Amino acid sequence: MNELPETMPKTMKAMVLEGHGDMDKLVWHEDWPVPVPQGAEVLIKVLACGLNNTDVNTRSGWYSKSVVAATTGAAYDKVSEDDPAWGGSPVSFPRIQGADVAGIVVACGSDANSTLLGKRVIADTWLRDWDSPLNKNNVGYFGSECDGGFAEYTTVDYRNVAAVVSDLSDAELATFSCSYSTAEGMLNRAQVSSDDTVLVTGASGGVGSALIQLAKRRGAKVVAMASEAKHDGVSKLSPDAILSRNPANLKAALKAAIGRETVSVVADIVGGDYFSTIIDVLARGGRYTCSGAIAGPMVSLDLRTLYLRDLTFTGSTVIPPKVFTDLVSYIEKGEIRPLVAATYSLKNLHAAQQAFIDKKHTGNIVVLP
Amino acid sequence: MNELPETMPKTMKAMVLEGHGDMDKLVWHEDWPVPVPQGAEVLIKVLACGLNNTDVNTRSGWYSKSVVAATTGAAYDKVSEDDPAWGGSPVSFPRIQGADVAGIVVACGSDANSTLLGKRVIADTWLRDWDSPLNKNNVGYFGSECDGGFAEYTTVDYRNVAAVVSDLSDAELATFSCSYSTAEGMLNRAQVSSDDTVLVTGASGGVGSALIQLAKRRGAKVVAMASEAKHDGVSKLSPDAILSRNPANLKAALKAAIGRETVSVVADIVGGDYFSTIIDVLARGGRYTCSGAIAGPMVSLDLRTLYLRDLTFTGSTVIPPKVFTDLVSYIEKGEIRPLVAATYSLKNLHAAQQAFIDKKHTGNIVVLP
Repeated sequence: MNELPETMPKTMKAMVLEGHGDMDKLVWHEDWPVPVPQGAEVLIKVLACGLNNTDVNTRSGWYSKSVVAATTGAAYDKVSEDDPAWGGSPVSFPRIQGADVAGIVVACGSDANSTLLGKRVIADTWLRDWDSPLNKNNVGYFGSECDGGFAEYTTVDYRNVAAVVSDLSDAELATFSCSYSTAEGMLNRAQVSSDDTVLVTGASGGVGSALIQLAKRRGAKVVAMASEAKHDGVSKLSPDAILSRNPANLKAALKAAIGRETVSVVADIVGGDYFSTIIDVLARGGRYTCSGAIAGPMVSLDLRTLYLRDLTFTGSTVIPPKVFTDLVSYIEKGEIRPLVAATYSLKNLHAAQQAFIDKKHTGNIVVLP
Repeated sequence: MNELPETMPKTMKAMVLEGHGDMDKLVWHEDWPVPVPQGAEVLIKVLACGLNNTDVNTRSGWYSKSVVAATTGAAYDKVSEDDPAWGGSPVSFPRIQGADVAGIVVACGSDANSTLLGKRVIADTWLRDWDSPLNKNNVGYFGSECDGGFAEYTTVDYRNVAAVVSDLSDAELATFSCSYSTAEGMLNRAQVSSDDTVLVTGASGGVGSALIQLAKRRGAKVVAMASEAKHDGVSKLSPDAILSRNPANLKAALKAAIGRETVSVVADIVGGDYFSTIIDVLARGGRYTCSGAIAGPMVSLDLRTLYLRDLTFTGSTVIPPKVFTDLVSYIEKGEIRPLVAATYSLKNLHAAQQAFIDKKHTGNIVVLP
């Protein structure tokens, strides 16, 4: 497609990231050009877009090791536009972020599947080389290596898009792709089954609440960790036990909650100073899986614990396409349900992201154009 | 068997560990009782016994986390007899250490396989529950949870023993079981294949030299790291490249040696301050496997590297029985060859172990009763 259909507006409202830094780098525009879908791309009218840590991490430069990183969302004065993002290459600016899109396909590039026109869709956040979709070395992330959903319109390859038949609202649909794919990818990497007891850190957040549901879906026993203020919210997801965020004696807390001091799996998105404590409750042969470190990425590891107890640690970032198609089937079968903590207008993304960073919510925060 | 055959001596020479501590806790005895094989046990006349880090670690109390451990072999004043050994339980004293036995079966308990009588054997170092041999939670280690080979005679379950048909000397045969099983277990855990490039740390030691040979046996490319003084010895094992122990710029050293800055696997027994450097050369999807930490177990880990690069870390300690039987087949087929650095008389174990700790050798050190 060389230009948009005449019926389409040529400009749109968009929140544009103009460089690494604090919230003021996210700048509101009301006359940003609507992207024209090329080749295999479809144009999506964005109905809702969920917030995720990766938006904050990319903005702040947290992924760059040239910056000594503390916790997610902190301001890093030293980060430059040359510093790498999550995948090792710099982000180019200006950039529209926003990975978790729900929307309607309103136009198609010449090579896109036009049966998607008019369908309500969500998008796989992984930009793949579709000639080699399992190649993890040639991928991008929606809203990082290309523009995403913090705008009225966005484009993505039609093979990244799936129509979803569901009664869920747009905001609810916009909570799944990033956080639930991340969570399912972690559980796949840790080979979680009904034999397992899974300790979930950061259980009140998007990935945390997804981990609870997706681990329960597999029949595993789930112990959720969250601050006391969020226990009511987390309990709606029916974990087998809920512990406080950082119990002073985790072994004793587990013993009281589930009858033994150890678990077979830790699914962690928190990291930080508590890392060594959660590693220490893994039974022989236990698995630690990680897709984030909102309390700080630099941790202290005792290699004796790793090797003498035959532990396995798996990092999880780039996820095969099957995770997304599995996720769509779980949504359509009603096996997982969203937990929308709050919605904001896109124009109020600063406030939405501040609420997200403050972590007083349980579940997902979504912006609506 | 209630008592030894009349033809057997009732006492023997043995080096007995009398508690955790420095070398002086290893005390020479010339009238220690020869053990009587019970039930499924066989009595082995020890012909040679190899030295391994686990002997030193158990003696010094290095496995106990109540001690802030530095490097293997350091003296730990605070370790007590109640402190746990490798498996989480205390060692009972007096204890005869020595895991890597080559010897002749000279007597059998009433339930042991008597066809082993007179055979030259080596022993699987893992004491198993033979009703459930894959159960990793109910195991002991030869020379730790029972007496081992630093004596003229020792006993072990006949199912731990394999006759080996080989032209190798007794000393050579006594180098395989502990270190080669450890190495093969690591390579299994990291699923090393001919597609891999494996970086081996501590390549001049027993496990390191085993890792080189066993990874080459799988068809993998091997980059060995060892101090310059040992490069001649290590080169006899035919790694594809040899680097210095801690290159200041490991990526550049790899690029010069193998044409690229990354590897797919790191097999590590060193740990210590260089840990973060070796993790940083793992390509996306790379695997780190560990069975020791002679440069110190406390390491700094950047969780961003683990998760953003989809890494897998595996600790390897308790090994399934198949590793030992595989190893025996490799020996009999001549697919691996020993590297005996020096032999000492058992009575001179202090000197042998000091040489072992000083790490000026390449390969294995063996004591002969």
